[in-house]
Amino acid sequence: MAEAAARKRSRGGGGAARRAERTSVQVETARYIERNIPNMELLDEAALEMIEEHAETVLEEVGVNFVQNPAALERWRAAGANIDGERVRIPRGLARELVKTAPSRFTQHARNPAKSVEIGGNSLVLAPVYGPPFVRDADGGRRYATIEDFRKFVKLGQICKWLHHSGGTVCEPTDVPVNKRHLDMLLAHMTLSDKPFMGSVTEPSRAQDSVDMAGILFGKEFVQENTVMTSLININSPLTFDDVMMGALEIYAANNQACIISPFIVGGAMAPVSVAGTLVQVLAETLAGVAYSQLVRPGAPVIMGAFVTSIDMNSGAPTFGTPEASQVTYGAGQLARRLGLPFRSAGSFCGSKLPDAQAAYETANSLNMGLLSGVNFMLHSCGWLEGGLVASFEKFVMDADQLGTLHKMAQGVTVNEDTLAMDAIREVGPGGHYLGCAHTQANFKTAFWRSEVFDYKPYETWSEEGARDTVALATARVQKLLDTYQQPMLDPSINEALNAYVAERKASMPDAFS
Amino acid sequence: MAEAAARKRSRGGGGAARRAERTSVQVETARYIERNIPNMELLDEAALEMIEEHAETVLEEVGVNFVQNPAALERWRAAGANIDGERVRIPRGLARELVKTAPSRFTQHARNPAKSVEIGGNSLVLAPVYGPPFVRDADGGRRYATIEDFRKFVKLGQICKWLHHSGGTVCEPTDVPVNKRHLDMLLAHMTLSDKPFMGSVTEPSRAQDSVDMAGILFGKEFVQENTVMTSLININSPLTFDDVMMGALEIYAANNQACIISPFIVGGAMAPVSVAGTLVQVLAETLAGVAYSQLVRPGAPVIMGAFVTSIDMNSGAPTFGTPEASQVTYGAGQLARRLGLPFRSAGSFCGSKLPDAQAAYETANSLNMGLLSGVNFMLHSCGWLEGGLVASFEKFVMDADQLGTLHKMAQGVTVNEDTLAMDAIREVGPGGHYLGCAHTQANFKTAFWRSEVFDYKPYETWSEEGARDTVALATARVQKLLDTYQQPMLDPSINEALNAYVAERKASMPDAFS
Repeated sequence: MAEAAARKRSRGGGGAARRAERTSVQVETARYIERNIPNMELLDEAALEMIEEHAETVLEEVGVNFVQNPAALERWRAAGANIDGERVRIPRGLARELVKTAPSRFTQHARNPAKSVEIGGNSLVLAPVYGPPFVRDADGGRRYATIEDFRKFVKLGQICKWLHHSGGTVCEPTDVPVNKRHLDMLLAHMTLSDKPFMGSVTEPSRAQDSVDMAGILFGKEFVQENTVMTSLININSPLTFDDVMMGALEIYAANNQACIISPFIVGGAMAPVSVAGTLVQVLAETLAGVAYSQLVRPGAPVIMGAFVTSIDMNSGAPTFGTPEASQVTYGAGQLARRLGLPFRSAGSFCGSKLPDAQAAYETANSLNMGLLSGVNFMLHSCGWLEGGLVASFEKFVMDADQLGTLHKMAQGVTVNEDTLAMDAIREVGPGGHYLGCAHTQANFKTAFWRSEVFDYKPYETWSEEGARDTVALATARVQKLLDTYQQPMLDPSINEALNAYVAERKASMPDAFS
Repeated sequence: MAEAAARKRSRGGGGAARRAERTSVQVETARYIERNIPNMELLDEAALEMIEEHAETVLEEVGVNFVQNPAALERWRAAGANIDGERVRIPRGLARELVKTAPSRFTQHARNPAKSVEIGGNSLVLAPVYGPPFVRDADGGRRYATIEDFRKFVKLGQICKWLHHSGGTVCEPTDVPVNKRHLDMLLAHMTLSDKPFMGSVTEPSRAQDSVDMAGILFGKEFVQENTVMTSLININSPLTFDDVMMGALEIYAANNQACIISPFIVGGAMAPVSVAGTLVQVLAETLAGVAYSQLVRPGAPVIMGAFVTSIDMNSGAPTFGTPEASQVTYGAGQLARRLGLPFRSAGSFCGSKLPDAQAAYETANSLNMGLLSGVNFMLHSCGWLEGGLVASFEKFVMDADQLGTLHKMAQGVTVNEDTLAMDAIREVGPGGHYLGCAHTQANFKTAFWRSEVFDYKPYETWSEEGARDTVALATARVQKLLDTYQQPMLDPSINEALNAYVAERKASMPDAFS
C-alpha cells in the first residue's frame, strides 16, 4: 500500500501548478519530427548481410513480374536485366546500383510553406489512415464512407496538431463515381487543408489529373521543379508490379513527384511465414521497384515502404500490432538506412472492430515501434480500424493525440545544468516536495506531455461527469475540433480554377461505379 | 483501395492453416524472458556521466534521511558517512563502492523448481499488480478488495502462461484486519500457486513472518542459503528512508532474501520536474538504499528500482504511459547496468478508470518501453488500473495476454537458411501465395504470436456473436481461466503447518483495522 499512499500525497499538493490556465484546443501544427534519439538496431550486421545477399539471389534467379507493361520491360532490358515474357531477372548488384540515384531525403512542399515536410534522414512525417471503404463513429455505427465523411476527415487532419500531412484516400467516398472520386478528394485536400497531401494512383490518368491540379495550386513551373505530392504505389506481393500502379509511378516519377514504393504483405500469405524470409522478399521487391523509378527518371524522389503484418492462421485474418510485424519493420528500417533511402512503415494498425482496448494495445505497439525503427513517413498514423476496412472518427482523434507522445520521445533527454536541477534538489531536500519550488514553477508548463483526450480527473469527478470511457471522450473531441475548424486562406482565383478543372473533367466522363 | 483489395485476397486462402486445431487454454508457464535483442540506449555517455557525478554531489552535500533508525545511522557512521541528526551525508564514491558487493544477478527459487526465475543480466521476470485497495470487474464494478478477490487473482496468476511470478499484494484484502492480512496473503501465494512470490514489508514483524512461513514451505536451511522471496522496499522520495521499510529491508537482507529498493516518484512532486533531475535523484536514492542493504549484509540480493511517472499539472494527478516516464526508465536502466545491478521498472500503468482504450494505450507504451529499457523485474505487469488504486480482473487477463508479445519480441529474429526461406520464395514465385507451401506448412503453428483474448474474426461473425468489445471478451476469459484452474500439489504436512502458523499468529494478536 506504500505506493498508493505516496500517490495520494502527490495529489495533495500542486496548488500553484493547478492554477495554470487549462489548455485550449490547439490550432497550430507541430513541425515534422526530427529524431534526437538512436534507432533500435534489432538485427546484427551478419543477419543484415545474409538478407541482402539472398534478396539479390531472388532478383537474379526468381525475378519479378512487370505485368502488361512492355515499356517497363524495354527499360529493364536496356538497363541489363534478362527478360523472359513478363519476368524480369535482375543481375546481382544491378538494382542496388540503380537505386543510388534516388535521393536520401527530399522536401515535400505544402501550399503553406510553414507546413512543408522533410522526408528522410532523421525525420518522421505523420499522415492519416488511407483507403478504408467504411467509416465508423459512435453515433452512426459502421457504414459506407461518403465524400462528406472524407471532408470531415480532411478538416480533422488540418486541425490536429500532431499530424503533419493531410494524407490521400482518408476514406473511399463511395457515393462519388469511382472514376471521379480522385477529383473530389484532391479538391478537398487542396482547399480544406494547407498541409501536404498525396496524389491518386488508381489509374495513370488520375495521376495526371493530380499533377495538373497541383500545377494549378502551386504553379506549373513550381511543380516541375519541386515535389508537392507523395503517392502510394503498392507492389502486388509476391514480386509482381501491375500496370496500373506502375503507370501511376511513371507519371509521378517523370514529373519529379514522390512515390512510396511499398510491398503490401500479410506474412504467411504474400510472403514466407518467417520474419527473415519476409525481409528477403521485402528487400527484393523494394529494390526492384525503386530501381525501376530511377529508370523512369534518375533522381526521382521515392520512399522505400514496408506494409507488413502477420496472420491469424486460425481465421486467415491479418493481425496487427504483433511482435512479428514489429520485427519486420525494425529490420526493414535497417535495410532502408543501409540503402540510404527514406523509409515508410508502421501506423495506427489494429484488427479490432471497435476503438476499444484491443485497438489501442495494437496501435500503441505499432506507433512505438514506428518511432524506434526509424520510419520517415508514417501513413495510417491515425484513424485505422478493423484491419483498414474502417476509418474511425473517434480513433482518428485518439490516435492523433497519442502521436504527441512520439514528438516528445523523439526529442530525447536534455542534460545540462538547468535540467540536472541541483538547485531544486538542494532547495527541497529530504522529505520536501517540488510542486512549489522555483525550478518547477519555471518549467512545469512544458515539462510533461499531456493528452487532450484522456481523462486525468479524480474518480469522483469522473463519475459525476458521466463515467465516460475513451470513446465517449473522443466523440466529444471530434465535435470540439470540427467546431474549431477554420478553412485556410486560398487565393480565390486558384480556388475557382481548381473547381473549374474538376467540373470540366467530370463532365468529360460518364459515371463509373466499378 | 489497393491495400483493402490485397487484404481481401489474403482472407481467401489458408484452408490448410485454418484446419489447425484451435488453441485451447494454456496451462503451462512460460520460462522467464531471456533477451536476445539489444537494449535501447537512449542517453549518451556524456549525459550518463553528468547524472552520475551530480548524484554523488547530492549524496555528499544534501544527503539522505534515515528516519527513527539509530541502528542505521550507526552503520552509516561506521562506514564513513557524516551523520547530522537523521541526515546521512555520504562521501563521494562511498555508496558506489558499497554497492559492489551486491550480486549482478540471482536466482529466486519457486517451490516448483521449474518456475524458479533468474533476476539480472538479460532476464525479464513478469509479476502482477501490487497494492490496490479496490478491485473492478464488469459485473461488480469498483469496490473494496477482499481476501476472496485476492485469492482469485492468485489463481489467475498461477494459470496465466506469460506471468512468471505470483507477486505480492495483488490487491489489499480490506476485509482482513490490517495486522493479519499478510498471513492470509502469504498463505494464498504459498498454497494456491507454485510460482515465486513476494514477502510483506508493512512491518518488520511481518517480514519476519514471511521468512518464517517461507521456512515452513521450503525448509529453514534452504531459505538461509537461497533466495525465495523478492520484496518491495519503497524509498520515501525525496531522499527519505523510513523505519518501517528499512526495518523490513533489514530482516530480508539479514536472511539473504531479495529486496527491490525503489523510489516512488511522481515527477514534479517527489522529484524535479525535469527528466535529467529526476534521474539524478533516482540514482542518489537507489545508491543510498542499495549501499545500506550491503551494510546490513554484504552480498544481499537487491534490485535497483525506479517507479517514476509524470504528473498532470492541471489536476495534480499522476499520469502514465507518458514519454517522460519512458525517458526516465530508459535512463535508469542504463544507470543500473553501469552499476551492475538488476533493474526493476515499467508495468501495466495507466490512469484510466476503465479498461478502455486510454488504459491500453498507456499500458502498451509502458510495457514496450519496459522490454526495451532492459528491465529485469517488472512488477505491476498486469492488472493495474486507475493509477494503481484498482486491480481490474478484465485488465489483468488483457495485460497478461499482451505479455506474450514481449516474449516473442525478446527472442529477436533468427536468420539462417531455413528462416531465409529461399525454397519457399522459389516455389511460390511472382503472383503466387504462400499459404499452402511446404515452408508455411512446416512453420505456421509457431510462426506468429496470437492473442488468446482479442477478436480476429470477420466482421459478420463478430457481429453475430454479440459485437463484443475487449472488456466483454476479457470477462469471458477470466471465467474460462478460473474454470481451468487447478491447485498445484503441496505436501499435506507442509500445508497443515502453514495453516497452523497462520492460525497461531492470528490468535496471538487483537484485530487492528488501521
